[in-house]
Amino acid sequence: MKHIRSFAQLIWVAYFAKQLLESNRTSSLRDLYYSSEAFGVRFNDQAESDRIITDLECLTGKPREVFGIFPEERSAIFGSVKMSYTVPGYEGREVDLTLSPDGFPIGRALMTAKPIETDAEMILAVESGGMFSRLIETMAWKRYRAILVQLGGQPPRSTRSLMRKLHEAFGLPVFLFTDGDPWGMHIAQVVKSGSANAAHIPGLTIPAAEWIGVTPADIQEYSLPSEPMTSADLKRLDELARDIRYAGSDWQKHITEFQGLRRKAEQQAFSRFGMDFVVDTYLADKLQ
Amino acid sequence: MKHIRSFAQLIWVAYFAKQLLESNRTSSLRDLYYSSEAFGVRFNDQAESDRIITDLECLTGKPREVFGIFPEERSAIFGSVKMSYTVPGYEGREVDLTLSPDGFPIGRALMTAKPIETDAEMILAVESGGMFSRLIETMAWKRYRAILVQLGGQPPRSTRSLMRKLHEAFGLPVFLFTDGDPWGMHIAQVVKSGSANAAHIPGLTIPAAEWIGVTPADIQEYSLPSEPMTSADLKRLDELARDIRYAGSDWQKHITEFQGLRRKAEQQAFSRFGMDFVVDTYLADKLQ
Repeated sequence: MKHIRSFAQLIWVAYFAKQLLESNRTSSLRDLYYSSEAFGVRFNDQAESDRIITDLECLTGKPREVFGIFPEERSAIFGSVKMSYTVPGYEGREVDLTLSPDGFPIGRALMTAKPIETDAEMILAVESGGMFSRLIETMAWKRYRAILVQLGGQPPRSTRSLMRKLHEAFGLPVFLFTDGDPWGMHIAQVVKSGSANAAHIPGLTIPAAEWIGVTPADIQEYSLPSEPMTSADLKRLDELARDIRYAGSDWQKHITEFQGLRRKAEQQAFSRFGMDFVVDTYLADKLQ
Repeated sequence: MKHIRSFAQLIWVAYFAKQLLESNRTSSLRDLYYSSEAFGVRFNDQAESDRIITDLECLTGKPREVFGIFPEERSAIFGSVKMSYTVPGYEGREVDLTLSPDGFPIGRALMTAKPIETDAEMILAVESGGMFSRLIETMAWKRYRAILVQLGGQPPRSTRSLMRKLHEAFGLPVFLFTDGDPWGMHIAQVVKSGSANAAHIPGLTIPAAEWIGVTPADIQEYSLPSEPMTSADLKRLDELARDIRYAGSDWQKHITEFQGLRRKAEQQAFSRFGMDFVVDTYLADKLQ
């Protein structure tokens, strides 16, 4: 009985995804959960419908976003790149991603847009919205010829998919700038090697992407204001030390150094040396 | 001594804000906290620097965003309205807010932009990103001639300030569509009457704004899928019942009905009746 139930759920999710595709529509994960009731399909909670969507991804090898199913979180992009929209009502319309000085949210329209041209030479993805804004308004994007991406924590797959698309279309290197703690390091790792949740989906990883910091060595070299790690931070480090994605010697070195330092620093911490330090000194050191 | 310390902090925050204004730059709250160290000004934690910023707002009667100080959260806007940017590098450049089908983030650039023209007839602000996307892609914004705003929970002041600017510049009514629970109701209330945290700042409230739901009456009339309220929900209702902003009879009625019902429903819950129900039926009932 249990198997029949989840099979019926899977069929319905596939049907719902087909409806979305045919009508060129999108749905949030939450919405899909509520929509099921209209069809007499029962999920105990959203966790259950999310799991069935993962099953669909496994079967098809495609991320849910391809079927028009999006999570709530959004991240943003800004830079000298022209994209051509494919969503209904905007087919073939071109947009220059420097046009909105607040950036562009990465939703379904940008995720499905075609890269046309760029004069950028790298993709620079940062963790916080504050850093993203700073790099726009200091014209750091011009100076480093960078397409800026705001990851906003663990980045949604639409963001990772768009980054990979730009990386491949234009052959641009990808640099990742996050907080200096196990969580920030893992955001970079997920962009590079994929998340445990999406391990079944090809086409989202960027193996050549590089974590530029904040590394434990940076915390010491730049004498950054730092905070002691919590027990949750230290536990997370232990987990990462055993994670296959961290098997490389560079990663192991970062982990060992964090474990020795037992301190962490946010990317915002460079402001301690003035508003321009991060652009003029830190990024210059790391990117050039 | 305690007063000298906080006075010194206030002077520094005012100095920092002046620097931001003169150099046409912005800072996040977090960034300002770290920046203080460059000047030998000590805050125990970010809560303390946030409080001093509030003091500056009290003294000047202006929201921190006017000084270029922004929180991390962002919300978004989409609709048939032309704005003219004033930020450096974009002065006088016009942007049509239907140009990005994923919406525009409301950051410093849009907050300081000038409204030029619109053919919209209302501002419709919604709580969730999922609802915002749905109203864009179903062309509900065209059908209801609405400028759409995604509040994203308790909306940042930049968002409230932009909504008020559009409300005043074009004389547009403002409708608020949130989850049907005390938290959603209070999001609407804050847009209407202001937050306790920003009670000292004029120019952010929209007294004529109207909460269209999800009301407790809606939960029953539309037979929405609902969940029992938690003790935190019920406690929050008790607090709101005593809050001066809820003194009006309509609000008291909503509170009493929620207390009787003891259930809540998200705005996504309308998906139970199919993807188009919320646009074709619910919004039609409420807005026409």
